Amino acid sequence: MTRQNRALRRWRSQKVAAARAARNTPKGLPVSPLAPAGGFPAIPPIAGLRLAATAAGVRYQGRDDVMLAVMDPGTVLAGVTTSSATRAAPVLDIEAKLAGPAHGDGGAAFLVNAGNANAFTGGTGMQSVEELVTATAAATGVAPERVLTCSTGVIGERLPHERITAALGGLEAALSPEAWAPAAAAIMTTDTFPKGAVRQVDTPDGPVQIAGFAKGSGMIAPDMATMLVFLFTDARISQPALQTLVSQSVPSSFNAITVDSDTSTSDTLLMAATGQAGSDLDAAPSAMEGFAAALSDLMQDLARQVVCDGEGASKLITIDVTGAADDADAHRAAMAIANSPLVKTAIAGEDPNWGRIVMAIGKSGAAADRDRLSIRFGEIEVARDGWVSPEYREEDGAAYMQRSEIEITVALGLGAGQARVWTCDLTHAYISINADYRS
Amino acid sequence: MTRQNRALRRWRSQKVAAARAARNTPKGLPVSPLAPAGGFPAIPPIAGLRLAATAAGVRYQGRDDVMLAVMDPGTVLAGVTTSSATRAAPVLDIEAKLAGPAHGDGGAAFLVNAGNANAFTGGTGMQSVEELVTATAAATGVAPERVLTCSTGVIGERLPHERITAALGGLEAALSPEAWAPAAAAIMTTDTFPKGAVRQVDTPDGPVQIAGFAKGSGMIAPDMATMLVFLFTDARISQPALQTLVSQSVPSSFNAITVDSDTSTSDTLLMAATGQAGSDLDAAPSAMEGFAAALSDLMQDLARQVVCDGEGASKLITIDVTGAADDADAHRAAMAIANSPLVKTAIAGEDPNWGRIVMAIGKSGAAADRDRLSIRFGEIEVARDGWVSPEYREEDGAAYMQRSEIEITVALGLGAGQARVWTCDLTHAYISINADYRS
Repeated sequence: MTRQNRALRRWRSQKVAAARAARNTPKGLPVSPLAPAGGFPAIPPIAGLRLAATAAGVRYQGRDDVMLAVMDPGTVLAGVTTSSATRAAPVLDIEAKLAGPAHGDGGAAFLVNAGNANAFTGGTGMQSVEELVTATAAATGVAPERVLTCSTGVIGERLPHERITAALGGLEAALSPEAWAPAAAAIMTTDTFPKGAVRQVDTPDGPVQIAGFAKGSGMIAPDMATMLVFLFTDARISQPALQTLVSQSVPSSFNAITVDSDTSTSDTLLMAATGQAGSDLDAAPSAMEGFAAALSDLMQDLARQVVCDGEGASKLITIDVTGAADDADAHRAAMAIANSPLVKTAIAGEDPNWGRIVMAIGKSGAAADRDRLSIRFGEIEVARDGWVSPEYREEDGAAYMQRSEIEITVALGLGAGQARVWTCDLTHAYISINADYRS
Repeated sequence: MTRQNRALRRWRSQKVAAARAARNTPKGLPVSPLAPAGGFPAIPPIAGLRLAATAAGVRYQGRDDVMLAVMDPGTVLAGVTTSSATRAAPVLDIEAKLAGPAHGDGGAAFLVNAGNANAFTGGTGMQSVEELVTATAAATGVAPERVLTCSTGVIGERLPHERITAALGGLEAALSPEAWAPAAAAIMTTDTFPKGAVRQVDTPDGPVQIAGFAKGSGMIAPDMATMLVFLFTDARISQPALQTLVSQSVPSSFNAITVDSDTSTSDTLLMAATGQAGSDLDAAPSAMEGFAAALSDLMQDLARQVVCDGEGASKLITIDVTGAADDADAHRAAMAIANSPLVKTAIAGEDPNWGRIVMAIGKSGAAADRDRLSIRFGEIEVARDGWVSPEYREEDGAAYMQRSEIEITVALGLGAGQARVWTCDLTHAYISINADYRS
């Protein structure tokens, strides 16, 4: 071996060692400037639910990385999962269970780890899921078919499930109705803040509560569900009704956000209703309506928080498309704008470059007539009927772009279709996070 | 007005002035590290074609920004244009002409400016095209219906066509069969090097030549055509045959590249055959075959050069997908990998993060079976049958990623569909170019 080859090999192995070390430490990323000012919300207990978090050392050191939620008998479950063709082993297990035994109303448990997605792990992936389910059932007394597991993190490495099963005894002993913030923090990967939300709904027989938390920062372009989202309520509601409400609210919340157009292999949303408070919603239509509205609002809140923690995000962008041929076309145009790297970099640079919005609409595949197209930034009309508005001054656009929350409205002038989506800008920090770290 | 408001307003106007100044100067970007080592190729004259370039000050100062190509009578034309729903005025004019009078074989002229795309400019956009066509016809003696104009640059601003018409006399006087390099340079926007290519084909009646140049660096995800591409040949070929050959070669060349998934409003490819050399190709099948192969090869060459000049590119990435259900599925999967910001940032960071390739396949919509999926980096087998290959060592993957040309092969194991696409990595320089400048 020549001296040059030895030097090259030494350099490479140092580089690999450094990359490995980086992987095994928390990211230490600064908290997103778009994080909620008040921090994680104060969430009261939900009757029939207990939570715990612990550090199992799945991948990260020095932080919690496993979360357990246990629900009492009488709980119904609902969920939606990713449509990725390469979805992870735990997602396949959840799909099978939600289609079958999970439809009952016994107790239930969610076990979630961060650091390893157990995705693209061949046959051993499903073995890991089975080990986790069996051990969780043994520790909590919940039937195995009512234990759902989620994993998030690196793809293609064996999940060291033995580290998690070894921690289950301690997790079970630590279960508490109060542990919302630790549970939300334990499932973070490149997230810079834990995301939680809570709503109350009145029913004839007293108030019910909906609360939940989510994780997600990159690989965010959900399809059918998103990232990991866990929602809980003490409401009394039938399983089919709960599933319907959840499914109805996904298109306008988690399916209406994008950070980077990349869809995760592990996107999962799970909801549990313990049935310990308020009226029987299936028999109380107006309370059901209030519950549906609160659930939808809470899901949008969590979805927006995910965008606010988008990797490298410095601005939250709301895109409204109106006047489309139909709602699907409106969504298509809005998502094309939201996913355009040229639109997102212009906004990062505070450049009111509306020509790039025109470009994105043009490529979206949505029906559009250049000469009917109008664009607004907030209240500022930028373009009307296919050209720059006579009153528009670039100074106004540039001043608007300095805000941390940007609203773009596009009127296509063709029909009644509309859609609203959220995204963030594309900054140097996105490149740094994804070129320099392996998440 | 408060003092704070005055300070804010002053700061804003300074910022706007600085942005305006930046727009009116050439970018001064460093030449892409992926530029061809030999520089712009030496291209011999093509009988019946003359070229010229000049500085008309459309937007940039201190550089050529207008190109004129004039072809002798006997020339046939072919072309393909963007499918964007917001395509620019000159594109609409070209589409109308290629569908009608341009089908003849008189003389022909291409007039091209950089700096302003004449896109989303309402009714004045088409007026500008008409002014340019009329003036070019007058200066060159070519019939107006055989004058095709292209514009590339900023969207949504009126094209100052009077600056171009004022330069036409000088341009016409400067026409020369040799001016390939100046013509290729005059149409650049954020390009860092001019892109040209040349091929020779033997025919029974002597050799013919195909040569051309292209521009494009960002907003590159062509659909039906791309950016601006101008191809010339002295071959004798019928218009329908030429159009067929061009259309056949687009899917595997310009429609097989992506820099940033954003599709331009102005993508146009034009080809002119002057008919002054070699055999009548329509009557010489084997020479036609050779011509078709050379044309396809030249178009792939130019397409790869566009990717090599992708904004901020530091690596050229070739993606082959085999074993797909059909060719369309293979293209879908390959483009999903090529457009994934997470794949592209990983490669920028020289991280052999193949899990992100699995993710991209999963979201692509192409039929895929996780347990039949295999992935190679060059000759290195990374994953086989749905999991990491037993022989794969991350050191090998990391060493491979240090190359400037990366080859990724994905075998889906389902059918006979295949596709090859090219892309580049996503680096900090892409963000800088697009957040800090307006192109």
